[in-house]
Amino acid sequence: MQFQLLTIVGVGLIGGSIGLAAKQRGVARRVRGLGRQRSSLDRALSVGALDEAHLDPQAAMTGADLVVFCTPVDQIADQVLTFAKHCEPSALLTDAGSTKAAIVEAVETQLPANGPQFVGSHPLAGSEKRGPEFADARLFEQRWTVVTSTPRTSAAALDRVASFWSALGSKVKTMSPADHDRALALTSHLPHLLAAALAGALPAELRDLTATGFRDTTRIAAGDPRLWTAIFDQNRTPVLEALGRLESRLHEFRQALESGNNAAVDQFLAQAKEVRDALGN
Amino acid sequence: MQFQLLTIVGVGLIGGSIGLAAKQRGVARRVRGLGRQRSSLDRALSVGALDEAHLDPQAAMTGADLVVFCTPVDQIADQVLTFAKHCEPSALLTDAGSTKAAIVEAVETQLPANGPQFVGSHPLAGSEKRGPEFADARLFEQRWTVVTSTPRTSAAALDRVASFWSALGSKVKTMSPADHDRALALTSHLPHLLAAALAGALPAELRDLTATGFRDTTRIAAGDPRLWTAIFDQNRTPVLEALGRLESRLHEFRQALESGNNAAVDQFLAQAKEVRDALGN
Repeated sequence: MQFQLLTIVGVGLIGGSIGLAAKQRGVARRVRGLGRQRSSLDRALSVGALDEAHLDPQAAMTGADLVVFCTPVDQIADQVLTFAKHCEPSALLTDAGSTKAAIVEAVETQLPANGPQFVGSHPLAGSEKRGPEFADARLFEQRWTVVTSTPRTSAAALDRVASFWSALGSKVKTMSPADHDRALALTSHLPHLLAAALAGALPAELRDLTATGFRDTTRIAAGDPRLWTAIFDQNRTPVLEALGRLESRLHEFRQALESGNNAAVDQFLAQAKEVRDALGN
Repeated sequence: MQFQLLTIVGVGLIGGSIGLAAKQRGVARRVRGLGRQRSSLDRALSVGALDEAHLDPQAAMTGADLVVFCTPVDQIADQVLTFAKHCEPSALLTDAGSTKAAIVEAVETQLPANGPQFVGSHPLAGSEKRGPEFADARLFEQRWTVVTSTPRTSAAALDRVASFWSALGSKVKTMSPADHDRALALTSHLPHLLAAALAGALPAELRDLTATGFRDTTRIAAGDPRLWTAIFDQNRTPVLEALGRLESRLHEFRQALESGNNAAVDQFLAQAKEVRDALGN
Protein backbone atom coordinates (compact mmCIF):
# COMPACT_ATOMS: atom_id res chain seq x y z
CA MET A 1 0.00 0.00 0.00
CA GLN A 2 1.87 3.09 -1.22
CA PHE A 3 -0.77 5.60 -0.14
CA GLN A 4 -3.31 5.72 2.64
CA LEU A 5 -5.72 8.16 1.03
CA LEU A 6 -5.74 9.13 -2.65
CA THR A 7 -7.90 12.06 -3.68
CA ILE A 8 -8.81 12.41 -7.35
CA VAL A 9 -9.91 15.86 -8.49
CA GLY A 10 -12.18 15.49 -11.51
CA VAL A 11 -13.52 11.97 -11.84
CA GLY A 12 -14.08 11.47 -15.57
CA LEU A 13 -12.60 8.80 -17.81
CA ILE A 14 -9.01 9.40 -16.61
CA GLY A 15 -9.79 10.14 -12.97
CA GLY A 16 -12.17 7.20 -12.79
CA SER A 17 -9.60 4.89 -14.36
CA ILE A 18 -6.98 6.02 -11.82
CA GLY A 19 -9.44 5.28 -9.00
CA LEU A 20 -10.30 1.83 -10.35
CA ALA A 21 -6.67 0.90 -10.98
CA ALA A 22 -5.51 2.21 -7.57
CA LYS A 23 -8.19 0.17 -5.79
CA GLN A 24 -7.77 -3.02 -7.81
CA ARG A 25 -3.98 -2.94 -7.54
CA GLY A 26 -3.92 -1.99 -3.86
CA VAL A 27 -2.00 1.21 -4.53
CA ALA A 28 -4.13 3.28 -2.13
CA ARG A 29 -6.01 2.15 0.95
CA ARG A 30 -8.87 4.52 0.26
CA VAL A 31 -9.86 6.53 -2.86
CA ARG A 32 -11.77 9.77 -2.61
CA GLY A 33 -13.20 11.85 -5.45
CA LEU A 34 -13.80 15.57 -5.69
CA GLY A 35 -16.21 16.79 -8.34
CA ARG A 36 -18.53 19.62 -9.20
CA GLN A 37 -21.60 17.54 -10.02
CA ARG A 38 -23.24 15.04 -7.73
CA SER A 39 -24.46 12.98 -10.72
CA SER A 40 -20.98 12.46 -12.08
CA LEU A 41 -19.60 11.51 -8.64
CA ASP A 42 -22.48 9.05 -8.22
CA ARG A 43 -21.58 7.38 -11.51
CA ALA A 44 -17.95 7.13 -10.38
CA LEU A 45 -19.08 5.56 -7.08
CA SER A 46 -21.37 3.13 -8.88
CA VAL A 47 -18.59 1.80 -11.16
CA GLY A 48 -16.40 1.30 -8.09
CA ALA A 49 -13.83 3.98 -8.93
CA LEU A 50 -14.22 5.70 -5.55
CA ASP A 51 -14.81 4.84 -1.92
CA GLU A 52 -16.19 8.30 -1.13
CA ALA A 53 -17.13 11.43 -3.03
CA HIS A 54 -17.07 15.13 -2.15
CA LEU A 55 -18.24 18.41 -3.60
CA ASP A 56 -16.24 20.48 -1.08
CA PRO A 57 -12.50 20.89 -1.85
CA GLN A 58 -11.47 21.38 1.78
CA ALA A 59 -13.17 18.17 2.90
CA ALA A 60 -11.69 16.33 -0.09
CA MET A 61 -8.10 17.39 0.68
CA THR A 62 -8.13 16.65 4.41
CA GLY A 63 -5.88 13.72 5.23
CA ALA A 64 -4.97 12.89 1.61
CA ASP A 65 -1.37 11.85 1.08
CA LEU A 66 -1.69 11.94 -2.72
CA VAL A 67 -3.90 14.25 -4.78
CA VAL A 68 -4.17 13.77 -8.56
CA PHE A 69 -5.72 16.58 -10.60
CA CYS A 70 -7.60 15.22 -13.62
CA THR A 71 -9.38 18.40 -14.63
CA PRO A 72 -9.06 20.39 -17.90
CA VAL A 73 -5.57 21.82 -18.43
CA ASP A 74 -6.72 25.42 -18.02
CA GLN A 75 -8.00 24.68 -14.49
CA ILE A 76 -5.20 22.55 -13.08
CA ALA A 77 -2.66 25.19 -11.94
CA ASP A 78 -5.29 27.35 -10.19
CA GLN A 79 -6.80 24.34 -8.48
CA VAL A 80 -3.45 23.00 -7.31
CA LEU A 81 -2.50 26.38 -5.84
CA THR A 82 -5.88 26.85 -4.16
CA PHE A 83 -6.44 23.33 -2.88
CA ALA A 84 -2.84 22.96 -1.64
CA LYS A 85 -3.79 25.26 1.22
CA HIS A 86 -6.17 22.57 2.52
CA CYS A 87 -3.62 19.75 2.19
CA GLU A 88 -1.30 18.20 4.74
CA PRO A 89 2.24 19.66 4.34
CA SER A 90 3.46 16.14 3.55
CA ALA A 91 0.91 15.60 0.78
CA LEU A 92 2.10 14.90 -2.74
CA LEU A 93 0.30 16.58 -5.66
CA THR A 94 0.33 15.62 -9.32
CA ASP A 95 -1.91 15.92 -12.37
CA ALA A 96 -2.86 14.17 -15.60
CA GLY A 97 -2.92 17.17 -17.93
CA SER A 98 -2.03 16.92 -21.63
CA THR A 99 0.18 20.01 -21.46
CA LYS A 100 2.94 20.53 -18.96
CA ALA A 101 5.02 23.73 -19.37
CA ALA A 102 2.33 26.27 -18.44
CA ILE A 103 1.00 24.17 -15.55
CA VAL A 104 4.34 23.22 -14.04
CA GLU A 105 5.73 26.77 -14.38
CA ALA A 106 2.67 28.32 -12.70
CA VAL A 107 2.61 25.80 -9.88
CA GLU A 108 6.34 25.49 -9.16
CA THR A 109 6.88 29.24 -9.00
CA GLN A 110 3.90 29.90 -6.73
CA LEU A 111 3.59 26.88 -4.44
CA PRO A 112 5.25 27.58 -1.04
CA ALA A 113 8.39 25.49 -0.50
CA ASN A 114 7.40 24.29 2.96
CA GLY A 115 4.10 22.69 1.99
CA PRO A 116 2.87 19.96 -0.37
CA GLN A 117 5.12 19.19 -3.32
CA PHE A 118 3.90 19.11 -6.92
CA VAL A 119 5.19 17.01 -9.83
CA GLY A 120 3.67 17.27 -13.30
CA SER A 121 2.42 14.07 -14.93
CA HIS A 122 0.79 13.07 -18.19
CA PRO A 123 -0.42 9.51 -18.70
CA LEU A 124 -0.56 8.89 -22.47
CA ALA A 125 -3.83 7.07 -22.36
CA GLY A 126 -7.34 8.13 -23.00
CA SER A 127 -10.12 8.12 -25.45
CA GLU A 128 -12.48 10.44 -27.24
CA LYS A 129 -15.10 9.20 -24.75
CA ARG A 130 -15.92 11.06 -21.56
CA GLY A 131 -17.16 10.22 -18.10
CA PRO A 132 -16.46 7.72 -15.32
CA GLU A 133 -18.74 5.15 -16.97
CA PHE A 134 -15.89 4.58 -19.47
CA ALA A 135 -13.29 4.17 -16.71
CA ASP A 136 -10.99 1.20 -17.20
CA ALA A 137 -8.69 -0.23 -14.51
CA ARG A 138 -6.28 -1.33 -17.25
CA LEU A 139 -6.13 2.02 -19.06
CA PHE A 140 -2.52 2.66 -18.04
CA GLU A 141 -1.11 -0.82 -18.51
CA GLN A 142 1.77 -0.91 -20.97
CA ARG A 143 1.27 2.79 -21.72
CA TRP A 144 3.76 5.52 -21.04
CA THR A 145 3.33 8.23 -18.43
CA VAL A 146 5.57 11.27 -18.63
CA VAL A 147 6.57 12.84 -15.31
CA THR A 148 8.26 16.22 -15.49
CA SER A 149 11.48 17.34 -13.92
CA THR A 150 12.77 20.90 -13.63
CA PRO A 151 15.53 22.47 -11.50
CA ARG A 152 12.81 23.21 -8.91
CA THR A 153 11.32 19.72 -8.80
CA SER A 154 11.91 17.71 -5.61
CA ALA A 155 13.75 14.49 -6.48
CA ALA A 156 11.98 12.60 -3.71
CA ALA A 157 8.57 13.77 -4.88
CA LEU A 158 9.46 12.87 -8.48
CA ASP A 159 10.39 9.34 -7.38
CA ARG A 160 7.16 8.86 -5.47
CA VAL A 161 5.02 10.13 -8.34
CA ALA A 162 6.89 7.92 -10.82
CA SER A 163 6.36 4.88 -8.62
CA PHE A 164 2.64 5.72 -8.32
CA TRP A 165 2.22 5.52 -12.09
CA SER A 166 4.33 2.37 -12.23
CA ALA A 167 2.10 0.83 -9.61
CA LEU A 168 -0.90 1.55 -11.89
CA GLY A 169 0.83 -0.51 -14.59
CA SER A 170 2.32 2.34 -16.59
CA LYS A 171 5.81 2.70 -18.00
CA VAL A 172 7.36 6.00 -16.87
CA LYS A 173 9.56 8.50 -18.68
CA THR A 174 11.00 11.69 -17.13
CA MET A 175 11.17 14.76 -19.35
CA SER A 176 11.35 18.52 -19.01
CA PRO A 177 7.95 20.21 -19.40
CA ALA A 178 9.12 21.93 -22.60
CA ASP A 179 10.37 18.68 -24.17
CA HIS A 180 7.08 17.02 -23.25
CA ASP A 181 5.07 19.78 -24.86
CA ARG A 182 7.11 19.78 -28.07
CA ALA A 183 6.79 16.00 -28.36
CA LEU A 184 3.07 15.90 -27.61
CA ALA A 185 2.40 18.74 -30.06
CA LEU A 186 3.47 16.28 -32.75
CA THR A 187 2.20 12.98 -31.33
CA SER A 188 -1.14 14.10 -29.91
CA HIS A 189 -2.17 17.71 -30.54
CA LEU A 190 -1.37 17.73 -34.26
CA PRO A 191 -3.32 14.48 -34.87
CA HIS A 192 -6.29 16.05 -33.11
CA LEU A 193 -6.05 19.15 -35.26
CA LEU A 194 -5.83 17.07 -38.47
CA ALA A 195 -8.73 14.86 -37.47
CA ALA A 196 -10.82 17.97 -36.81
CA ALA A 197 -9.77 19.68 -40.03
CA LEU A 198 -10.68 16.58 -42.03
CA ALA A 199 -13.99 15.93 -40.27
CA GLY A 200 -14.94 19.57 -40.63
CA ALA A 201 -14.22 19.47 -44.37
CA LEU A 202 -16.81 16.75 -45.00
CA PRO A 203 -20.04 18.04 -46.57
CA ALA A 204 -23.20 16.40 -45.19
CA GLU A 205 -24.07 14.88 -48.57
CA LEU A 206 -20.85 12.84 -48.60
CA ARG A 207 -21.31 11.21 -45.19
CA ASP A 208 -22.56 7.96 -46.77
CA LEU A 209 -19.37 7.73 -48.79
CA THR A 210 -17.04 7.49 -45.79
CA ALA A 211 -15.62 4.10 -44.84
CA THR A 212 -13.25 2.86 -42.15
CA GLY A 213 -10.36 5.01 -43.42
CA PHE A 214 -12.20 8.29 -42.90
CA ARG A 215 -13.64 7.06 -39.62
CA ASP A 216 -10.32 5.96 -38.13
CA THR A 217 -8.58 9.10 -39.27
CA THR A 218 -11.21 11.41 -37.75
CA ARG A 219 -12.18 9.40 -34.65
CA ILE A 220 -10.53 11.73 -32.12
CA ALA A 221 -12.35 14.74 -33.59
CA ALA A 222 -15.25 13.56 -31.41
CA GLY A 223 -13.29 14.74 -28.36
CA ASP A 224 -14.60 17.60 -26.21
CA PRO A 225 -13.92 20.94 -27.98
CA ARG A 226 -13.55 22.87 -24.73
CA LEU A 227 -10.85 20.55 -23.37
CA TRP A 228 -8.96 20.71 -26.66
CA THR A 229 -9.25 24.46 -27.06
CA ALA A 230 -7.52 24.76 -23.68
CA ILE A 231 -4.80 22.31 -24.76
CA PHE A 232 -4.12 24.22 -27.99
CA ASP A 233 -4.13 27.50 -26.08
CA GLN A 234 -1.56 26.23 -23.58
CA ASN A 235 0.67 24.65 -26.20
CA ARG A 236 0.37 27.26 -28.93
CA THR A 237 3.98 27.61 -30.11
CA PRO A 238 4.88 23.89 -30.26
CA VAL A 239 1.55 23.14 -32.00
CA LEU A 240 2.22 25.82 -34.62
CA GLU A 241 5.69 24.35 -35.18
CA ALA A 242 4.27 20.84 -35.58
CA LEU A 243 1.64 22.19 -37.96
CA GLY A 244 4.37 23.87 -40.00
CA ARG A 245 6.19 20.57 -40.24
CA LEU A 246 3.05 18.86 -41.51
CA GLU A 247 2.27 21.65 -43.97
CA SER A 248 5.76 21.19 -45.44
CA ARG A 249 5.09 17.51 -45.96
CA LEU A 250 1.75 18.21 -47.61
CA HIS A 251 3.48 20.71 -49.86
CA GLU A 252 6.09 18.09 -50.78
CA PHE A 253 3.32 15.61 -51.62
CA ARG A 254 1.48 18.24 -53.65
CA GLN A 255 4.57 18.92 -55.73
CA ALA A 256 5.15 15.22 -56.36
CA LEU A 257 1.53 14.66 -57.39
CA GLU A 258 1.22 17.82 -59.50
CA SER A 259 4.32 16.91 -61.47
CA GLY A 260 3.23 13.30 -61.94
CA ASN A 261 6.29 12.08 -60.04
CA ASN A 262 4.93 8.68 -59.04
CA ALA A 263 8.30 7.56 -57.69
CA ALA A 264 8.24 10.44 -55.20
CA VAL A 265 4.61 9.72 -54.23
CA ASP A 266 5.48 6.07 -53.70
CA GLN A 267 8.53 7.01 -51.61
CA PHE A 268 6.40 9.36 -49.48
CA LEU A 269 3.86 6.59 -48.82
CA ALA A 270 6.50 3.91 -48.27
CA GLN A 271 8.34 5.95 -45.65
CA ALA A 272 5.02 6.59 -43.84
CA LYS A 273 4.13 2.90 -43.95
CA GLU A 274 7.50 2.01 -42.44
CA VAL A 275 6.86 4.35 -39.51
CA ARG A 276 3.27 3.19 -39.03
CA ASP A 277 4.20 -0.51 -39.22
CA ALA A 278 6.82 0.09 -36.51
CA LEU A 279 4.12 1.43 -34.15
CA GLY A 280 2.10 -1.79 -34.23
CA ASN A 281 -1.68 -1.74 -33.93
CA MET B 1 -28.66 -18.22 -57.67
CA GLN B 2 -27.99 -15.07 -59.70
CA PHE B 3 -24.86 -16.35 -61.40
CA GLN B 4 -23.66 -19.79 -62.48
CA LEU B 5 -19.95 -19.02 -62.48
CA LEU B 6 -18.30 -16.02 -60.88
CA THR B 7 -14.65 -15.36 -61.71
CA ILE B 8 -12.67 -13.10 -59.39
CA VAL B 9 -9.52 -11.55 -60.83
CA GLY B 10 -7.10 -10.80 -57.99
CA VAL B 11 -8.01 -12.69 -54.85
CA GLY B 12 -6.77 -10.53 -51.98
CA LEU B 13 -8.76 -9.08 -49.11
CA ILE B 14 -11.51 -7.67 -51.36
CA GLY B 15 -11.57 -10.46 -53.94
CA GLY B 16 -11.49 -13.09 -51.21
CA SER B 17 -14.32 -11.40 -49.35
CA ILE B 18 -16.41 -11.30 -52.53
CA GLY B 19 -15.80 -15.02 -53.00
CA LEU B 20 -16.71 -15.89 -49.43
CA ALA B 21 -19.83 -13.72 -49.45
CA ALA B 22 -20.98 -15.01 -52.86
CA LYS B 23 -20.62 -18.62 -51.71
CA GLN B 24 -22.18 -18.16 -48.28
CA ARG B 25 -25.11 -16.17 -49.65
CA GLY B 26 -25.67 -18.43 -52.63
CA VAL B 27 -25.13 -15.59 -55.11
CA ALA B 28 -23.03 -17.75 -57.46
CA ARG B 29 -23.14 -21.48 -58.01
CA ARG B 30 -19.39 -21.69 -58.42
CA VAL B 31 -16.57 -19.24 -57.64
CA ARG B 32 -13.33 -19.25 -59.56
CA GLY B 33 -10.21 -17.19 -58.87
CA LEU B 34 -7.54 -15.91 -61.20
CA GLY B 35 -4.22 -14.89 -59.72
CA ARG B 36 -0.56 -14.49 -60.51
CA GLN B 37 0.83 -16.47 -57.59
CA ARG B 38 -0.04 -20.04 -56.70
CA SER B 39 0.61 -19.36 -52.99
CA SER B 40 -1.95 -16.60 -52.82
CA LEU B 41 -4.55 -18.66 -54.69
CA ASP B 42 -3.89 -21.56 -52.32
CA ARG B 43 -4.57 -19.33 -49.32
CA ALA B 44 -7.81 -18.17 -50.94
CA LEU B 45 -8.82 -21.80 -51.53
CA SER B 46 -7.94 -22.75 -47.97
CA VAL B 47 -10.16 -20.04 -46.42
CA GLY B 48 -13.02 -21.20 -48.65
CA ALA B 49 -13.19 -18.09 -50.81
CA LEU B 50 -12.91 -20.10 -54.05
CA ASP B 51 -14.02 -23.39 -55.52
CA GLU B 52 -11.22 -23.39 -58.09
CA ALA B 53 -8.14 -21.34 -58.87
CA HIS B 54 -6.33 -20.51 -62.10
CA LEU B 55 -3.12 -18.85 -63.22
CA ASP B 56 -4.22 -18.71 -66.87
CA PRO B 57 -6.61 -15.89 -67.85
CA GLN B 58 -8.18 -17.71 -70.74
CA ALA B 59 -9.06 -20.75 -68.64
CA ALA B 60 -10.37 -18.46 -65.88
CA MET B 61 -12.73 -16.57 -68.19
CA THR B 62 -14.23 -19.55 -70.00
CA GLY B 63 -17.87 -20.01 -69.07
CA ALA B 64 -17.98 -17.20 -66.49
CA ASP B 65 -21.18 -15.17 -66.49
CA LEU B 66 -19.76 -12.57 -64.07
CA VAL B 67 -16.12 -11.44 -63.80
CA VAL B 68 -15.08 -9.05 -61.00
CA PHE B 69 -11.69 -7.35 -61.30
CA CYS B 70 -10.14 -6.78 -57.85
CA THR B 71 -6.66 -5.83 -58.99
CA PRO B 72 -4.80 -2.51 -58.48
CA VAL B 73 -6.49 0.43 -60.24
CA ASP B 74 -3.68 0.87 -62.73
CA GLN B 75 -4.16 -2.70 -64.02
CA ILE B 76 -7.94 -2.95 -64.22
CA ALA B 77 -8.70 -1.30 -67.59
CA ASP B 78 -5.99 -3.23 -69.45
CA GLN B 79 -7.05 -6.51 -67.89
CA VAL B 80 -10.72 -5.95 -68.67
CA LEU B 81 -9.95 -5.15 -72.30
CA THR B 82 -7.58 -8.11 -72.67
CA PHE B 83 -9.55 -10.74 -70.77
CA ALA B 84 -12.88 -9.72 -72.35
CA LYS B 85 -11.66 -11.45 -75.53
CA HIS B 86 -11.77 -14.78 -73.68
CA CYS B 87 -15.24 -14.18 -72.20
CA GLU B 88 -18.65 -15.31 -73.39
CA PRO B 89 -20.41 -12.44 -75.23
CA SER B 90 -23.13 -12.53 -72.57
CA ALA B 91 -20.67 -12.18 -69.67
CA LEU B 92 -20.96 -9.24 -67.33
CA LEU B 93 -17.75 -7.50 -66.18
CA THR B 94 -17.24 -5.21 -63.22
CA ASP B 95 -14.47 -4.15 -60.85
CA ALA B 96 -13.79 -3.04 -57.29
CA GLY B 97 -11.34 -0.22 -57.96
CA SER B 98 -11.06 2.87 -55.75
CA THR B 99 -11.04 5.20 -58.76
CA LYS B 100 -13.58 5.18 -61.53
CA ALA B 101 -13.21 7.88 -64.20
CA ALA B 102 -9.98 6.66 -65.81
CA ILE B 103 -11.01 3.00 -65.70
CA VAL B 104 -14.56 3.47 -66.96
CA GLU B 105 -13.49 5.85 -69.71
CA ALA B 106 -10.76 3.50 -70.97
CA VAL B 107 -13.00 0.44 -70.90
CA GLU B 108 -16.24 1.92 -72.24
CA THR B 109 -14.55 3.57 -75.21
CA GLN B 110 -12.56 0.47 -76.20
CA LEU B 111 -14.72 -2.51 -75.36
CA PRO B 112 -16.59 -3.76 -78.47
CA ALA B 113 -20.35 -3.16 -78.25
CA ASN B 114 -21.30 -6.71 -79.26
CA GLY B 115 -19.38 -8.48 -76.48
CA PRO B 116 -19.33 -8.56 -72.70
CA GLN B 117 -20.64 -5.44 -70.96
CA PHE B 118 -18.68 -3.57 -68.30
CA VAL B 119 -20.02 -1.52 -65.36
CA GLY B 120 -17.68 0.22 -62.93
CA SER B 121 -18.08 -0.55 -59.21
CA HIS B 122 -16.43 0.48 -55.97
CA PRO B 123 -17.41 -1.22 -52.72
CA LEU B 124 -16.54 1.19 -49.87
CA ALA B 125 -15.11 -1.47 -47.65
CA GLY B 126 -11.64 -2.61 -46.96
CA SER B 127 -8.79 -2.42 -44.59
CA GLU B 128 -5.13 -1.57 -44.44
CA LYS B 129 -4.59 -5.35 -44.31
CA ARG B 130 -3.84 -7.41 -47.39
CA GLY B 131 -4.38 -10.94 -48.59
CA PRO B 132 -7.16 -13.52 -48.72
CA GLU B 133 -6.41 -14.62 -45.14
CA PHE B 134 -8.17 -11.42 -44.04
CA ALA B 135 -11.22 -12.07 -46.24
CA ASP B 136 -14.54 -11.56 -44.48
CA ALA B 137 -17.89 -12.74 -45.83
CA ARG B 138 -19.56 -9.83 -44.04
CA LEU B 139 -17.24 -7.12 -45.37
CA PHE B 140 -19.92 -5.55 -47.55
CA GLU B 141 -22.85 -5.75 -45.17
CA GLN B 142 -24.40 -2.38 -44.44
CA ARG B 143 -21.67 -0.69 -46.48
CA TRP B 144 -22.19 1.30 -49.64
CA THR B 145 -21.09 0.22 -53.08
CA VAL B 146 -20.99 2.83 -55.81
CA VAL B 147 -21.84 1.61 -59.33
CA THR B 148 -21.14 4.01 -62.16
CA SER B 149 -23.42 5.15 -64.91
CA THR B 150 -22.45 7.06 -68.06
CA PRO B 151 -24.29 7.69 -71.35
CA ARG B 152 -22.55 4.55 -72.70
CA THR B 153 -23.45 2.27 -69.77
CA SER B 154 -25.99 -0.47 -70.50
CA ALA B 155 -28.98 -0.03 -68.20
CA ALA B 156 -29.54 -3.78 -68.04
CA ALA B 157 -25.90 -4.43 -67.11
CA LEU B 158 -26.04 -1.68 -64.48
CA ASP B 159 -29.11 -3.31 -62.91
CA ARG B 160 -27.46 -6.72 -62.79
CA VAL B 161 -24.26 -5.37 -61.26
CA ALA B 162 -26.22 -3.38 -58.68
CA SER B 163 -28.21 -6.45 -57.71
CA PHE B 164 -24.98 -8.45 -57.39
CA TRP B 165 -23.65 -6.04 -54.76
CA SER B 166 -27.04 -5.96 -53.04
CA ALA B 167 -26.98 -9.73 -52.88
CA LEU B 168 -23.61 -9.51 -51.07
CA GLY B 169 -25.30 -7.37 -48.41
CA SER B 170 -24.24 -3.96 -49.67
CA LYS B 171 -26.28 -0.81 -50.11
CA VAL B 172 -25.90 0.52 -53.66
CA LYS B 173 -25.60 4.06 -55.00
CA THR B 174 -25.35 5.01 -58.69
CA MET B 175 -23.05 7.91 -59.56
CA SER B 176 -21.14 9.22 -62.55
CA PRO B 177 -17.46 8.22 -62.50
CA ALA B 178 -16.42 11.87 -62.09
CA ASP B 179 -18.76 12.45 -59.16
CA HIS B 180 -17.48 9.27 -57.54
CA ASP B 181 -13.89 10.35 -57.92
CA ARG B 182 -14.50 13.85 -56.54
CA ALA B 183 -16.33 12.41 -53.52
CA LEU B 184 -13.77 9.71 -52.81
CA ALA B 185 -10.91 12.19 -53.12
CA LEU B 186 -12.32 13.80 -50.00
CA THR B 187 -13.67 10.78 -48.12
CA SER B 188 -10.89 8.27 -48.81
CA HIS B 189 -7.86 9.54 -50.71
CA LEU B 190 -7.34 12.70 -48.65
CA PRO B 191 -7.54 10.76 -45.34
CA HIS B 192 -4.90 8.40 -46.69
CA LEU B 193 -2.67 11.30 -47.67
CA LEU B 194 -3.07 12.94 -44.23
CA ALA B 195 -2.42 9.70 -42.38
CA ALA B 196 0.76 9.22 -44.41
CA ALA B 197 1.90 12.83 -43.95
CA LEU B 198 1.41 12.54 -40.20
CA ALA B 199 3.05 9.13 -39.85
CA GLY B 200 5.96 10.25 -41.96
CA ALA B 201 6.47 13.33 -39.77
CA LEU B 202 7.10 11.24 -36.65
CA PRO B 203 10.76 11.03 -35.66
CA ALA B 204 11.82 7.59 -34.39
CA GLU B 205 12.64 8.94 -30.93
CA LEU B 206 9.01 10.02 -30.40
CA ARG B 207 7.41 6.66 -31.20
CA ASP B 208 6.98 5.83 -27.50
CA LEU B 209 5.02 9.02 -27.02
CA THR B 210 2.20 8.10 -29.39
CA ALA B 211 -1.10 6.92 -27.96
CA THR B 212 -4.44 5.86 -29.44
CA GLY B 213 -5.02 9.26 -31.06
CA PHE B 214 -1.91 9.08 -33.21
CA ARG B 215 -2.48 5.42 -33.92
CA ASP B 216 -6.09 5.82 -35.05
CA THR B 217 -5.28 8.85 -37.14
CA THR B 218 -2.42 7.14 -38.97
CA ARG B 219 -3.74 3.55 -39.16
CA ILE B 220 -4.43 3.60 -42.91
CA ALA B 221 -0.89 4.78 -43.63
CA ALA B 222 0.02 1.09 -43.28
CA GLY B 223 -1.70 0.47 -46.62
CA ASP B 224 0.29 -0.72 -49.62
CA PRO B 225 2.22 2.23 -51.13
CA ARG B 226 2.06 0.84 -54.67
CA LEU B 227 -1.72 0.51 -54.63
CA TRP B 228 -2.10 4.02 -53.28
CA THR B 229 0.38 5.59 -55.66
CA ALA B 230 -1.77 4.26 -58.49
CA ILE B 231 -4.94 5.65 -56.86
CA PHE B 232 -3.39 9.11 -56.43
CA ASP B 233 -2.07 9.01 -59.99
CA GLN B 234 -5.50 8.16 -61.41
CA ASN B 235 -7.35 10.71 -59.30
CA ARG B 236 -4.81 13.54 -59.38
CA THR B 237 -7.03 16.58 -59.97
CA PRO B 238 -9.79 15.76 -57.46
CA VAL B 239 -7.16 14.84 -54.84
CA LEU B 240 -5.35 18.14 -55.35
CA GLU B 241 -8.70 19.96 -54.98
CA ALA B 242 -9.49 18.08 -51.76
CA LEU B 243 -6.00 18.82 -50.47
CA GLY B 244 -6.51 22.50 -51.22
CA ARG B 245 -9.72 22.45 -49.23
CA LEU B 246 -7.93 20.92 -46.27
CA GLU B 247 -5.00 23.31 -46.52
CA SER B 248 -7.49 26.20 -46.30
CA ARG B 249 -8.93 24.78 -43.13
CA LEU B 250 -5.47 24.33 -41.61
CA HIS B 251 -4.70 27.92 -42.53
CA GLU B 252 -7.92 29.04 -40.84
CA PHE B 253 -6.98 27.12 -37.70
CA ARG B 254 -3.45 28.54 -37.77
CA GLN B 255 -4.80 32.08 -37.90
CA ALA B 256 -7.17 31.44 -35.00
CA LEU B 257 -4.43 29.89 -32.87
CA GLU B 258 -1.76 32.46 -33.75
CA SER B 259 -4.06 35.30 -32.80
CA GLY B 260 -5.14 33.62 -29.57
CA ASN B 261 -8.75 33.52 -30.78
CA ASN B 262 -9.96 30.70 -28.54
CA ALA B 263 -13.57 31.22 -29.57
CA ALA B 264 -12.63 30.52 -33.19
CA VAL B 265 -10.55 27.46 -32.19
CA ASP B 266 -13.46 26.15 -30.14
CA GLN B 267 -15.87 26.76 -33.03
CA PHE B 268 -13.54 24.90 -35.43
CA LEU B 269 -13.38 21.90 -33.09
CA ALA B 270 -17.10 21.98 -32.26
CA GLN B 271 -18.11 21.93 -35.93
CA ALA B 272 -15.76 18.98 -36.53
CA LYS B 273 -17.14 17.11 -33.53
CA GLU B 274 -20.68 17.60 -34.83
CA VAL B 275 -19.72 16.02 -38.16
CA ARG B 276 -17.79 13.18 -36.53
CA ASP B 277 -20.56 12.41 -34.03
CA ALA B 278 -23.02 12.19 -36.94
CA LEU B 279 -20.91 9.46 -38.58
CA GLY B 280 -21.16 7.10 -35.59
CA ASN B 281 -18.34 4.77 -34.68
